[in-house]
Amino acid sequence: FSESVICLQCLFGYETNVMLVINNKGVGALFRLIQFLIIAYVAVYVCWIQRAYQDTDSVISSVSTKVKGNILTNTSIEGVHVWDVPEYVIPPQGEKSFFVLTNVIPTPGQTQSKCPEIPSLVTKCESDSDCIEGQTEVHGNGVQTGHCVQYSDTIKTCEVQAWCPLENDTIIPKPALLGAAEHFTVLIKNNIQYPKFNFRKRNLLHHINSTYLKNCTFDRKTDPHCPIFRLGHMVTEAGEDFSVMALKGGIIGIFIDWNCDLDFPERFCIPKYSFSRLDNKNPENNVAPGYNFRFAKYYKNNKSIETRTLIKAFGIRFDVIVFGMAGKFNIVPTIVNLGAALACLSLVTAICDWVMLTCMKDHDQYQKCIKIIKNDSQDIHNVTKDFYLK
Amino acid sequence: FSESVICLQCLFGYETNVMLVINNKGVGALFRLIQFLIIAYVAVYVCWIQRAYQDTDSVISSVSTKVKGNILTNTSIEGVHVWDVPEYVIPPQGEKSFFVLTNVIPTPGQTQSKCPEIPSLVTKCESDSDCIEGQTEVHGNGVQTGHCVQYSDTIKTCEVQAWCPLENDTIIPKPALLGAAEHFTVLIKNNIQYPKFNFRKRNLLHHINSTYLKNCTFDRKTDPHCPIFRLGHMVTEAGEDFSVMALKGGIIGIFIDWNCDLDFPERFCIPKYSFSRLDNKNPENNVAPGYNFRFAKYYKNNKSIETRTLIKAFGIRFDVIVFGMAGKFNIVPTIVNLGAALACLSLVTAICDWVMLTCMKDHDQYQKCIKIIKNDSQDIHNVTKDFYLK
Amino acid sequence: FSESVICLQCLFGYETNVMLVINNKGVGALFRLIQFLIIAYVAVYVCWIQRAYQDTDSVISSVSTKVKGNILTNTSIEGVHVWDVPEYVIPPQGEKSFFVLTNVIPTPGQTQSKCPEIPSLVTKCESDSDCIEGQTEVHGNGVQTGHCVQYSDTIKTCEVQAWCPLENDTIIPKPALLGAAEHFTVLIKNNIQYPKFNFRKRNLLHHINSTYLKNCTFDRKTDPHCPIFRLGHMVTEAGEDFSVMALKGGIIGIFIDWNCDLDFPERFCIPKYSFSRLDNKNPENNVAPGYNFRFAKYYKNNKSIETRTLIKAFGIRFDVIVFGMAGKFNIVPTIVNLGAALACLSLVTAICDWVMLTCMKDHDQYQKCIKIIKNDSQDIHNVTKDFYLK
Repeated sequence: FSESVICLQCLFGYETNVMLVINNKGVGALFRLIQFLIIAYVAVYVCWIQRAYQDTDSVISSVSTKVKGNILTNTSIEGVHVWDVPEYVIPPQGEKSFFVLTNVIPTPGQTQSKCPEIPSLVTKCESDSDCIEGQTEVHGNGVQTGHCVQYSDTIKTCEVQAWCPLENDTIIPKPALLGAAEHFTVLIKNNIQYPKFNFRKRNLLHHINSTYLKNCTFDRKTDPHCPIFRLGHMVTEAGEDFSVMALKGGIIGIFIDWNCDLDFPERFCIPKYSFSRLDNKNPENNVAPGYNFRFAKYYKNNKSIETRTLIKAFGIRFDVIVFGMAGKFNIVPTIVNLGAALACLSLVTAICDWVMLTCMKDHDQYQKCIKIIKNDSQDIHNVTKDFYLK
Repeated sequence: FSESVICLQCLFGYETNVMLVINNKGVGALFRLIQFLIIAYVAVYVCWIQRAYQDTDSVISSVSTKVKGNILTNTSIEGVHVWDVPEYVIPPQGEKSFFVLTNVIPTPGQTQSKCPEIPSLVTKCESDSDCIEGQTEVHGNGVQTGHCVQYSDTIKTCEVQAWCPLENDTIIPKPALLGAAEHFTVLIKNNIQYPKFNFRKRNLLHHINSTYLKNCTFDRKTDPHCPIFRLGHMVTEAGEDFSVMALKGGIIGIFIDWNCDLDFPERFCIPKYSFSRLDNKNPENNVAPGYNFRFAKYYKNNKSIETRTLIKAFGIRFDVIVFGMAGKFNIVPTIVNLGAALACLSLVTAICDWVMLTCMKDHDQYQKCIKIIKNDSQDIHNVTKDFYLK
Repeated sequence: FSESVICLQCLFGYETNVMLVINNKGVGALFRLIQFLIIAYVAVYVCWIQRAYQDTDSVISSVSTKVKGNILTNTSIEGVHVWDVPEYVIPPQGEKSFFVLTNVIPTPGQTQSKCPEIPSLVTKCESDSDCIEGQTEVHGNGVQTGHCVQYSDTIKTCEVQAWCPLENDTIIPKPALLGAAEHFTVLIKNNIQYPKFNFRKRNLLHHINSTYLKNCTFDRKTDPHCPIFRLGHMVTEAGEDFSVMALKGGIIGIFIDWNCDLDFPERFCIPKYSFSRLDNKNPENNVAPGYNFRFAKYYKNNKSIETRTLIKAFGIRFDVIVFGMAGKFNIVPTIVNLGAALACLSLVTAICDWVMLTCMKDHDQYQKCIKIIKNDSQDIHNVTKDFYLK
């Protein structure tokens, strides 16, 4: 019976450490200083700046884009031509990565046939023996037939089976054919969600109405929330010159930063836009500088033979990159950070003990005061007597 | 020699706090209650619900899609026409974002020429002086030539250089031309991996065989793991009406949630599908409502003049959005959470001390019992005597 | 006045626990061993291996790709044909997911008309009553007209309104028509950034110059940093046979791992490439094995009737998947991990107490030594006397 009483006593026995309070101004001040520093760190840095009391989630995003604008060009090959969106935006679907044509090298009337290669170090030849049938050069345009034929009056090159006539892309139109594309605008619609917090929002904010949207253009100062961007403005903000970039193309990143503190009301969670060039403009290793690709429009002529217009398209690819982390109060990271800070507070006592036991003049006395030493051979009665009644 | 002995003693001296056990039922109960709450929080919330003992990794995913279905339409312009996948799925490659055509405004026979603009507030004119050569309206279809010409018997508009005849998209076919697209099905193949845990899986689960796949359609109750989805079903689950959405288009998100607890066997890691509409259906700021884009098919006519059929395509873009976090036991977060909880346990003693030292009637006695106070001027012998023999 | 003095004393009173040092070799050794283990865990595992003192950020990436190569094919249908990049890379823009055509089933000359279905279990018929007007089979090619017509001399099938003649894809060209695509190369340009650390880098490393880039090909041993990859090499590294995979297509993941420790200089942050097959090659549930899609080239013939060449394209889709986490020293995770480890150190004392109080032969004496027990009824003077002078 008495044992169960003891157990009950154990259950409700509350244990606390016996503490020694030392009224030494030096160590006391040090003790309070370190305590203050740790508490200040937790309050200011961990809670306020790093918001370590929050659980976080990454953004999930959906983007659609719509470019507007028309350009009139007048070239010797194509004559007067008006370019509209279905022609210069590739792909046309308005995805989060869209390409706007700024410069073009067209090669109309290509058919499957044989023609001399474009002259280069490896394609020039003197006789058929310089050309190997079936060989394909990495930078060539077709498969060699093994014949050496006249390219111009003075130059002979290996003949190739290819889409002929071959494209000659040595001369890039300057200024860029569609350099006026800088006046085009693009509407970016972006829906995001943080699934962990069941939070959804889009970049068309509540206060933006139709009338405003029809006339606004993004401007960091006057219209920071307008989701319609002038291409030229974005390129300028990225620190580039549109007319230069239009020549050989490039990649511009449109960054939408959705970092949000969801402990605040939803209306404070607004996207921040920024722009920067993503491709290489380093002149050192400028293999394939800029951004270009080739595509073709296929036709059948009167004799049902397939012909195509090959287009080497230079232009600016705009990548809409949505990123962000949302934070919201959660008990787990709070406890973790609070607990860790508390544990660090226990370090303070350890540091002060060490200071006192090594630096103070009467450290032996302190030592005895804090630490009760018991040796194996000693009786427990003697320990306490030794210590307390010495 | 004696010093080195002391050092050895130090090394094997085991230090423990001297504790005061107070058998006060009130404080004891409070002490145990708070202890219990903290331990319960750690066990239930941190370990069980939040799985804070786990290291986490984000999903890496690859998606391919394949739509199936045919539709017959009968319009005055195009006559009887059967639409198959290569015509109505754009882009055709079956990527994770695919567009299904539901409504079409075709403008066949466009060539580069001059024609009057579609009438609007800014394009109507009285004389040539109202039109400015070279100007392009943001919402216009071409570049003005500076002439004011007859659009219809009563209306004059500015002439533009453009792909003529211009598209007139004021009347949207109703009901949607390809409204029957709701019966199409799409097979979604999704491979995921968690590189940190070297874990791979796909949404074609082990128990799904070819026979089942050929006949099944996703249904939340009867076939929750079938990766073949009826378009109409997805739109309905997203809370939308397919026939309404088909008119002007929109964006539907197909969410695949791969949140997995990898401490369980691999077979418990199964994808959860959900659907929701991603684009704006808020009538307040419905600039460019729905989802549409224009693309063109290019032809050359008998005289080798380029003509095109412009197609304003309304439809539903399906974005397959794969997300998820995998968790697996890891010692670091375990120690962190355990340590933090332990540190918080030390708070309990502090709270109980405070309660006892302020609220209990004999708090002065407790105070003396717990805290041994030493002042600078006191000799250490007196401290202990003061305290213990008073 | 005296109270405010006490308060000031409180403020500078430094509190430390009274400790009992027990010179018992067994428990002492255990105490030091556990202490050592915890400190070793923190130093080696947490700091060195898991780098838990670091804050982390996920990679943001932009990719562009450019394929090079030409192939000559000679088929009975199309004759001699040279395939160049605009023809076999779909989409042509050079995005992070690009498709390379390896096998083709072309169906030229399709027009909107009526023709008998391809024979199958559900399309074979005896009379018109077996065919239902307006019905579309899931795996069919058009909409049934309700007539049963002669497909060949012996077989009758339901007539469909469709793009006729229908594609017959039962026989896949073997070997793959463009099997030589394994010699193609692709240049992958990848720019990444870690926005939290304001860190940017690209996979064209500093030491790579134009000359090197023109001639190099990625090789894990000799050229691990060359961003030009031979398609065949990637497929081989993924453990697949290109000639087999070329037949029916598939998806290859090109993984670029940018895991970086940004406490080291920037030059140590280099991408690691790896390759693996992402689609299903499990023969059990091989519905739609491989990777294929259909697209069409549209023409208008002499009578202005739209015809098209339908192409069933088999090929390999290469998905460039960029992933990685960057870590950099940050005080918050450091404090959290340090604090948690310290808190765990306090466990050591608890364990040793338990060992001593239960396993040692004179545990009662230790008990009395560590714990001072006070009961409610006792006077505080008696407590201390009881304990220390017994």
